[in-house]
Amino acid sequence: MENTKIPYKIYLDESEIPTQWYNVRADMKNKPAPLLNPATLKPMTAEELYPVFCKELVAQELNDTDAYIDIPQEIQDFYKMYRPSPLIRAYFLEKALGTPAKIYYKFEGNNTSGSHKLNSAIAQAYYAKKQGLKGVTTETGAGQWGTALSMACSYFGLDCKVYMVKVSYEQKPFRREVMRTYGASVTPSPSTDTAVGRKILKEHPGTTGSLGCAISEAVEVATSTEGYRYVLGSVLNQVLLHQSVIGLEAKKALDKYNVKPDIIIGCAGGGSNLGGLISPFVGEKLRGEADYRIIAVEPASCPSLTRGKFAYDFCDTGKVCPLSKMYTLGSGFIPSANHAGGLRYHGMSSTLSQLYHDGLMEATSVEQTSVFAAAEQFARVEGILPAPESSHAIRVAINEALKCKETGEEKTILFGLTGTGYFDMLAYEKFNDGLMSDYIPTDEELQKGFDGLPNVPEN
Amino acid sequence: MENTKIPYKIYLDESEIPTQWYNVRADMKNKPAPLLNPATLKPMTAEELYPVFCKELVAQELNDTDAYIDIPQEIQDFYKMYRPSPLIRAYFLEKALGTPAKIYYKFEGNNTSGSHKLNSAIAQAYYAKKQGLKGVTTETGAGQWGTALSMACSYFGLDCKVYMVKVSYEQKPFRREVMRTYGASVTPSPSTDTAVGRKILKEHPGTTGSLGCAISEAVEVATSTEGYRYVLGSVLNQVLLHQSVIGLEAKKALDKYNVKPDIIIGCAGGGSNLGGLISPFVGEKLRGEADYRIIAVEPASCPSLTRGKFAYDFCDTGKVCPLSKMYTLGSGFIPSANHAGGLRYHGMSSTLSQLYHDGLMEATSVEQTSVFAAAEQFARVEGILPAPESSHAIRVAINEALKCKETGEEKTILFGLTGTGYFDMLAYEKFNDGLMSDYIPTDEELQKGFDGLPNVPEN
Repeated sequence: MENTKIPYKIYLDESEIPTQWYNVRADMKNKPAPLLNPATLKPMTAEELYPVFCKELVAQELNDTDAYIDIPQEIQDFYKMYRPSPLIRAYFLEKALGTPAKIYYKFEGNNTSGSHKLNSAIAQAYYAKKQGLKGVTTETGAGQWGTALSMACSYFGLDCKVYMVKVSYEQKPFRREVMRTYGASVTPSPSTDTAVGRKILKEHPGTTGSLGCAISEAVEVATSTEGYRYVLGSVLNQVLLHQSVIGLEAKKALDKYNVKPDIIIGCAGGGSNLGGLISPFVGEKLRGEADYRIIAVEPASCPSLTRGKFAYDFCDTGKVCPLSKMYTLGSGFIPSANHAGGLRYHGMSSTLSQLYHDGLMEATSVEQTSVFAAAEQFARVEGILPAPESSHAIRVAINEALKCKETGEEKTILFGLTGTGYFDMLAYEKFNDGLMSDYIPTDEELQKGFDGLPNVPEN
Repeated sequence: MENTKIPYKIYLDESEIPTQWYNVRADMKNKPAPLLNPATLKPMTAEELYPVFCKELVAQELNDTDAYIDIPQEIQDFYKMYRPSPLIRAYFLEKALGTPAKIYYKFEGNNTSGSHKLNSAIAQAYYAKKQGLKGVTTETGAGQWGTALSMACSYFGLDCKVYMVKVSYEQKPFRREVMRTYGASVTPSPSTDTAVGRKILKEHPGTTGSLGCAISEAVEVATSTEGYRYVLGSVLNQVLLHQSVIGLEAKKALDKYNVKPDIIIGCAGGGSNLGGLISPFVGEKLRGEADYRIIAVEPASCPSLTRGKFAYDFCDTGKVCPLSKMYTLGSGFIPSANHAGGLRYHGMSSTLSQLYHDGLMEATSVEQTSVFAAAEQFARVEGILPAPESSHAIRVAINEALKCKETGEEKTILFGLTGTGYFDMLAYEKFNDGLMSDYIPTDEELQKGFDGLPNVPEN
């Protein structure tokens, strides 16, 4: 190993954990489009959102003017349980690739939720507690969000009802059990608990569920149960706001060593991790202070940015949620059963969608066998078994590093390693046994999703 | 949370990772008894051990005079991948218990092996590589050791053959898959690959295996295959030597804040984690420089220290290994199927056995339902889902902290949190469903194990 001043792992001090979130919308000239009421097609007011979301979270959702928002002390305290997260210089990977590129990754998997999801879960649970609620409802796909929320609710003594996509519920019994260990109730979705679940089951008997469908159920339960609200782990502006701690810490760690990344890479499902990681860097870009190449990576099987439409769409299958303007494959699009459950969502954060639309961010898609090949290579040299979702970013980071090897360029690459893959070993088994396949939807299949887009006249 | 100068997590700098292992035997007046050749009942010579173990590891095994042994640069490099590990002040747990005690734990689970086992795996793989071997064989029970070894072998390009206790192989397919992801071959034990496996299968058809049995198979394959040696993840002196990095780091972190523990607690199966954690503290005790109360915690179902005999015994079921003088339940003792696979071993490190015999360490045993209750309590407030093995130490740490609550004493407690429980969710499920039971062997059952002890005359 070369002798260098930059350590393998850069840990900030506890005193350097951010005390304010950064709200990138404040610096955007073209603001993300507002949520619309599906009945009136008018922007949702705060009052209209209160039955679904906690009041302070609604305020954060609608706030596109304040660049910094204070993190309450109780959340700062909880962050100390698992933050700051390390920024790791991938010396081992660089050596294995023989690349002149300098690779860094921000590792958010060293907590029991196994991912970055805890950053927003604790914030949302805090505001629910502060509002005097009994509990919250949510959906979970891959399970990281549900796990994170169960941990956060356990900490504040809130009830936590999780609707888990049925295929994940069955394939990931251990995920379910972690949530139960933290006191959450976990129901496979679609269920017969809700009107929307019963309707979906009737229309699609034998369905293994989807995120969009689980969202509909969780929202129905929240809005029909006294003292409950709904919380969501991605897509929303408030989530990207909370997740900005990832980028703020990463930037502070890099700044300490005067390192400026040339390329910033993150996987993108609903956008929570990518949005959080890039926020402060995009802020500099928006303010004309610096330039960065930013790449969103999505699965070829669920390509909302690279093949979707920029349009108003429902956030959920049951069409009970507000309309959001975003890159979308249509709320009726059911992605093939790939192994990155966290990236199987038909839409994309409206903030990221706007940044992409405005050319401030690139997007690319990758196929899952190449993703698992990168995951295995990474695990063997860096010693961390990555989640399938995170491995999408690894794939592209390796690709970019190999390009540097060809050209001899010493680019600095930063990517987000959102989580660990301990609960994804069925997918790894499939890959190890050579049984994993790729799937790319045809244009005709995508058209079916687009045909279901709601008709919203341009302003 | 109280405002204090001691952070939640104390991370040493990379430059503070130990560059020498500490060999506690050098400071022991009563040295651990030597390994005996079972045929001659004479101490094993280095030459007799070479067919089984790598040469440099044999030298470390037999070295009871050098207090410090240099850590080769290649191992130091690898340590940087996941070390230093954090020393965590359990502020959240202290608050939940309402205890005046100050609780610290050294967390070794933040790496893909999920435990401290990697500390010795990388050392043993390094010496195998240095000796020009093709590969190594080993056994694994709970799976942490096998995972750690597969990671280490992958790093050095060594072949890795793991014999996994059959019940674990079946109950923990994901563990197996992690090892395969790192390129290891994994065989359920007993298998028909080996003479000893076939013999055991014939005598005990339908057996679900044991650590002692898997050791016999791994040793047979190593000694009968060109270019292979056997490696073991616990019990041996060399393993305790490598694991001393745990205690050295913990002590350095505490020293930075002038903290001196009153009580040091660790779980004890074969003794690798406990021996590593306590080594530098016991060294001070042996040299008369300080005093510490040290507590080994074992499962009530496999109580080698608290109910075993201090005698020469076989290390394995097949009786192919040398004899070791240790606290043992007899190599024929089959512990009940408790959920802490890493603690289901009939014997105990000869070094720890000697320290216990000489009154330098206490031991206690706990039942598994109380262990899982402690695990769940800990997970909910500290945010780390502990391995069942580690939770034995948590149980006793909480008990001691609650005693302080009664007496008002502000004792400082340090315990070892050896690993995470992500692959133990079947056990958690049993606990969550109220289906977990306790088992304590009767004196008659223990006597059967003692009846099988070899007849070794006292010197």
